[in-house]
Amino acid sequence: MTAALSSTSTKRTLDLGPAVELVSKEEGHRQPLAPEFVSAEDFSPLEVAYDFGRVRREDIEAGPRNIWRYKKLLPVPSNVEEIPNTEPGCTRLVRADRLAKALGLKRVWVKDDTGNPTHSFKDRVVAVALAAAREFGFDTLACPSTGNLANAVAAAAARAGWQSVVLIPSSLERAKILTTAVYDGNLIAVDGNYDDVNRLATQLAAEHETWAFVNVNVRPYYSEGSKTLAFEVAEQLGWRLPEQIVVPIASGSQLTKVDKGFREFGKLGLVEETPYKVFGAQATGCSPVSTAFRNGHDVVQPVKPDTIARSLAIGNPADGPYVLDTVNRTGGAIEDVSDEEVVEGIRLLARTEGIFTETAGGVTVATAKKLIETGKLDPDAETVLLITGDGLKTLDAIEGQVGPKATVPPSVDAVRRALES
Amino acid sequence: MTAALSSTSTKRTLDLGPAVELVSKEEGHRQPLAPEFVSAEDFSPLEVAYDFGRVRREDIEAGPRNIWRYKKLLPVPSNVEEIPNTEPGCTRLVRADRLAKALGLKRVWVKDDTGNPTHSFKDRVVAVALAAAREFGFDTLACPSTGNLANAVAAAAARAGWQSVVLIPSSLERAKILTTAVYDGNLIAVDGNYDDVNRLATQLAAEHETWAFVNVNVRPYYSEGSKTLAFEVAEQLGWRLPEQIVVPIASGSQLTKVDKGFREFGKLGLVEETPYKVFGAQATGCSPVSTAFRNGHDVVQPVKPDTIARSLAIGNPADGPYVLDTVNRTGGAIEDVSDEEVVEGIRLLARTEGIFTETAGGVTVATAKKLIETGKLDPDAETVLLITGDGLKTLDAIEGQVGPKATVPPSVDAVRRALES
Repeated sequence: MTAALSSTSTKRTLDLGPAVELVSKEEGHRQPLAPEFVSAEDFSPLEVAYDFGRVRREDIEAGPRNIWRYKKLLPVPSNVEEIPNTEPGCTRLVRADRLAKALGLKRVWVKDDTGNPTHSFKDRVVAVALAAAREFGFDTLACPSTGNLANAVAAAAARAGWQSVVLIPSSLERAKILTTAVYDGNLIAVDGNYDDVNRLATQLAAEHETWAFVNVNVRPYYSEGSKTLAFEVAEQLGWRLPEQIVVPIASGSQLTKVDKGFREFGKLGLVEETPYKVFGAQATGCSPVSTAFRNGHDVVQPVKPDTIARSLAIGNPADGPYVLDTVNRTGGAIEDVSDEEVVEGIRLLARTEGIFTETAGGVTVATAKKLIETGKLDPDAETVLLITGDGLKTLDAIEGQVGPKATVPPSVDAVRRALES
Repeated sequence: MTAALSSTSTKRTLDLGPAVELVSKEEGHRQPLAPEFVSAEDFSPLEVAYDFGRVRREDIEAGPRNIWRYKKLLPVPSNVEEIPNTEPGCTRLVRADRLAKALGLKRVWVKDDTGNPTHSFKDRVVAVALAAAREFGFDTLACPSTGNLANAVAAAAARAGWQSVVLIPSSLERAKILTTAVYDGNLIAVDGNYDDVNRLATQLAAEHETWAFVNVNVRPYYSEGSKTLAFEVAEQLGWRLPEQIVVPIASGSQLTKVDKGFREFGKLGLVEETPYKVFGAQATGCSPVSTAFRNGHDVVQPVKPDTIARSLAIGNPADGPYVLDTVNRTGGAIEDVSDEEVVEGIRLLARTEGIFTETAGGVTVATAKKLIETGKLDPDAETVLLITGDGLKTLDAIEGQVGPKATVPPSVDAVRRALES
């Protein structure tokens, strides 16, 4: 029994804002809001259902400059912005004309989520998970992770004054260990690979009633945080939807939630319900969803990941089938790119727009390029690229690829010769 | 002769917004706006003077969510926000109650400038320098640097489609080389120390009429960008000034410009002219301004830097005397802290607020702690700490200081034992 389900007299009313119940994705079984993630009826993932009431642009515009401006569309308490949190979101949407020209596209926007508190979109989902977890009575924020999620969970817990338990494979690079350990939570290195760590997390979630594993037992709430990427893009475009959007695929959750966000904005009348296409991006070394799309399948065959895009390296993506649904429904496509193309994608974005993304962003840029070359992305349609993480965290990817133009003695002539060469 | 001073028929009218002339800091000699940085009359630094006219809160609030909302207070063209730029600024100001409690302060705000495009405040000053440099007819953005400035210049030039020339000591760490080289400008490694590189930059600035060295020939414009830190703090506090602010000191420019920003807001009636105190923070290993303050001097004796806070390691700070003026005028103080205290400052901010800062931020936090202990900072007064750079760039500082709590086999019992130990 979790703390949330406790029936003691101290139990207070659950306030998750507009969220009213959980619904199973396959057969639509409904159940009360709780820290659960799989339907006991049809064993499919549970998703949050809402009763939004009326939401107006003015209400959103008058809100804080972070994801809580959209709190009336998220499973979070009504006073969420008043409780200490990392205040993620409202990152830059930049018009990328130089990238557009290089790609042969008419108009491109880059949603640069490296501006978040720990420099990836994970701050969004973790903030929503923490807010919901607090309502359910948890007191510890936890996750298995190899990178961005570990940073986001440890930072969010520190800011909130919560305990954290972050599980990582003991073989993780020193830099990634440092950037999590600095927040002084309970960082536990596990002798094993990421699959071992993940399995351990599921066991621990079942045994510790006060631990909210953001991507396990509170996953339905956590994943809703990705909708804020869509909300921001639409608001930043001047309250309208783009025609095309390219989204990287790891578990696939983000892609489906971006679509959900656009649809919710449309249904609520916050934007006109203009058509848009959702495109998915994977690294060839971990491309189960792209492969399924190419073969016209509606299920996804798991793979063993082997790519430098480690933040996307989920071989058995939980939301794979729903990604295929979304992409097919909107008329988009999915492609995958080699590790060499990923690095070229990183470098292309850096040299054209001054934005240094991690490998996942390289996947997005390189996939956009491939989708244009194969005629799947319309070069005349307005396109948004989601850049969800920071290059500072994956320096290995460009090691040996970039460097100084020259090394010279300290003289004006030497610099001149170096520049002319 | 620089391009700016060319008298060909293609010369257009200079539009630097409200900027009207340059004034020498010592004797107030006035001269026309130009890419110059030292007065030929009294050899003191030149500063931008303005004719602001009327500036209203509503105009600012209706502006873009970046530093250009303050364009009517900066030496930039009237249409600056329409020209591709990195769009820095509007970073988080977070109420830091847990840090306040740890420090024994009543109310603390952290201005977290790690959210900028290349994760330091340098994006602000470089954006202003680039905007002014374009007006003067330059076509290449340049700087000598060992870190944050190199990143900011290379990224800003890439985004604008400009050439860049970034000079670094060849001994620089591989990570700092990569994070600049990725933007694909002209990164030149110079065999020599930072002083050699700096000298070379001054020589090159004199010889290349189309190169804008942001911190040399366009320095008066560049340095104005730091005012936006003050503008944002005041606006984010709800259009009022804080009572105390702690600012790290490298050249000292930022501290004097934060003060200038507060005064401009006050004079323009954008905020009430309430009293505030400006405090300066240095690392003991490079503390010439702190030493001068302690000894009651009004000049600053140069030192040879030896500290892990390398982004503050300027042994002969150009604005040192003006820092002393500002701190004395406002009733503040300056302190310095050991490298050990810097690391503890980094860790304190991370564990209380989930913000991972570079060594300069550690200097700010540790100095605030020391200023409280010595009774110079009023614990009951509202205090702002400027956190101007990102911990991801100075991982060496915490290497060996933080790490996993334990390394365990993949079992629930092992995790439990690790957490109980």
